Amino acid sequence: MVDRFIFTVSDRTGITAESLGVTLLCHFPNLEFKTVPLPFVDTPEKARDAARKINESSEKNGGPPLIFATLADDEIREIIAASNGVLFDLFDHFLAPLEKELGLESEHSVGSSHGVLNPNKYTARIAALNFTMRSDDGMNAVDYDHAELIIIGVSRTAKTPTSLYLALHYGVSAANFPLLEDDLERARLQDKIIRHRKKLFGLTIDPARLRKIRQARYDKGRYAQLRQCEYEVAQAEAMYRRERIPFVNTTAKSVEEIAATILHKINLNRDLM
Amino acid sequence: MVDRFIFTVSDRTGITAESLGVTLLCHFPNLEFKTVPLPFVDTPEKARDAARKINESSEKNGGPPLIFATLADDEIREIIAASNGVLFDLFDHFLAPLEKELGLESEHSVGSSHGVLNPNKYTARIAALNFTMRSDDGMNAVDYDHAELIIIGVSRTAKTPTSLYLALHYGVSAANFPLLEDDLERARLQDKIIRHRKKLFGLTIDPARLRKIRQARYDKGRYAQLRQCEYEVAQAEAMYRRERIPFVNTTAKSVEEIAATILHKINLNRDLM
Repeated sequence: MVDRFIFTVSDRTGITAESLGVTLLCHFPNLEFKTVPLPFVDTPEKARDAARKINESSEKNGGPPLIFATLADDEIREIIAASNGVLFDLFDHFLAPLEKELGLESEHSVGSSHGVLNPNKYTARIAALNFTMRSDDGMNAVDYDHAELIIIGVSRTAKTPTSLYLALHYGVSAANFPLLEDDLERARLQDKIIRHRKKLFGLTIDPARLRKIRQARYDKGRYAQLRQCEYEVAQAEAMYRRERIPFVNTTAKSVEEIAATILHKINLNRDLM
Repeated sequence: MVDRFIFTVSDRTGITAESLGVTLLCHFPNLEFKTVPLPFVDTPEKARDAARKINESSEKNGGPPLIFATLADDEIREIIAASNGVLFDLFDHFLAPLEKELGLESEHSVGSSHGVLNPNKYTARIAALNFTMRSDDGMNAVDYDHAELIIIGVSRTAKTPTSLYLALHYGVSAANFPLLEDDLERARLQDKIIRHRKKLFGLTIDPARLRKIRQARYDKGRYAQLRQCEYEVAQAEAMYRRERIPFVNTTAKSVEEIAATILHKINLNRDLM
């Protein structure tokens, strides 16, 4: 059951509009949204086509659809504004005041957006991503000297997506290393890891949630049993505390939120790329 | 030389504020910004501390700093608004009207944001990411049956970051496969790839840019020579055209933009996750 249709309308890729919509709608977790991206709406004809789609959906649903738009052309914007949807226009609210404050026309008015902003940053981001891919899940131990951050945790605590997110969005060379049965039994980290203590960050999770995630993956043997999950989590957390490794519980957090929390806790002030 | 300082101020992780700031500032590619995230500003005391940091930076720079904020508490917001920065408040402009339209208080006012929105979507996203990791760069050919999309291209055309971005942000199971010397010489795709023709999407790039990227990686032998880059790109594009494989030139595009363009061209209507 969809509560509202969301249209993201843009004369280019629509990433700005879509990202704004997603970040705003995150704040209404109890509603079910269905998002329809309408990118590359760059002629009045395409705008009329988009308006028609918006109107059709508004007939099918209780509330009017919401429209998040970045449209530079006045004629196109007016066609969309005249539809049955409720328009939230990023350009009106933010870009125009920003242009005034910065004393510059934004590129949105004149051409491309979301291109390769800064080639050096771009290269750094790709380098970080390559590093993170190479050193995923304990592969290639020789690389830890080059890591800015090493994320540790038992299986299925979101180490890999968190590392990749940090590399892709913040250019952080984030390795990750699994805590395996041996480490947990001895309740000690391997030497090759513990000697990078200052770079370590632990992930933990509620055992019941961990069990569900593991069950979906591999439902045989001890791996997905609640008792095993409880044991591994308890051993990992005890180890984090004893070794004074900062850690975060990922149970109710999105990958974005885990990443932001880690950067804040380790005081790594890094631009979003 | 930094043209403006940007502060993203939030009572929580600051992801919403930061993402808004980045998407807006993308539109001013000729200015150099320095972003300072100030997350977890959730008491008047921390707000005064944040305002002090903002004021200190405004003394050092030409223009006043820009502040992108998501602050639910009035007292905290007023402290920030009274600083020397120019405040762009997401809550005022969008969340409040959205609350009115949806007839609901946003979670921002009452608790967590950016959490795990929808557990099913979250699981799908992680599954897509695992698939993409497993099938990166031609590994594990047996998996192509499960791919929703197979990205092909010569070395260093952004296949891996694009695949990961599509998996992480849209939950698309995107494999990628490199076009190697043999494929290019024969100007034919391997059977195990061409039989998935409908899932194929090609990347291409200007040879001069490709040379620069390759030089930064490995500057020996033919790999980074302009002539070799020109040859590989020409062969790849000829093959895309002959096999009627859609493709996009990535030269001036960010990973976000490449991903959005692919989804649009293959008509894969997928929610941003």
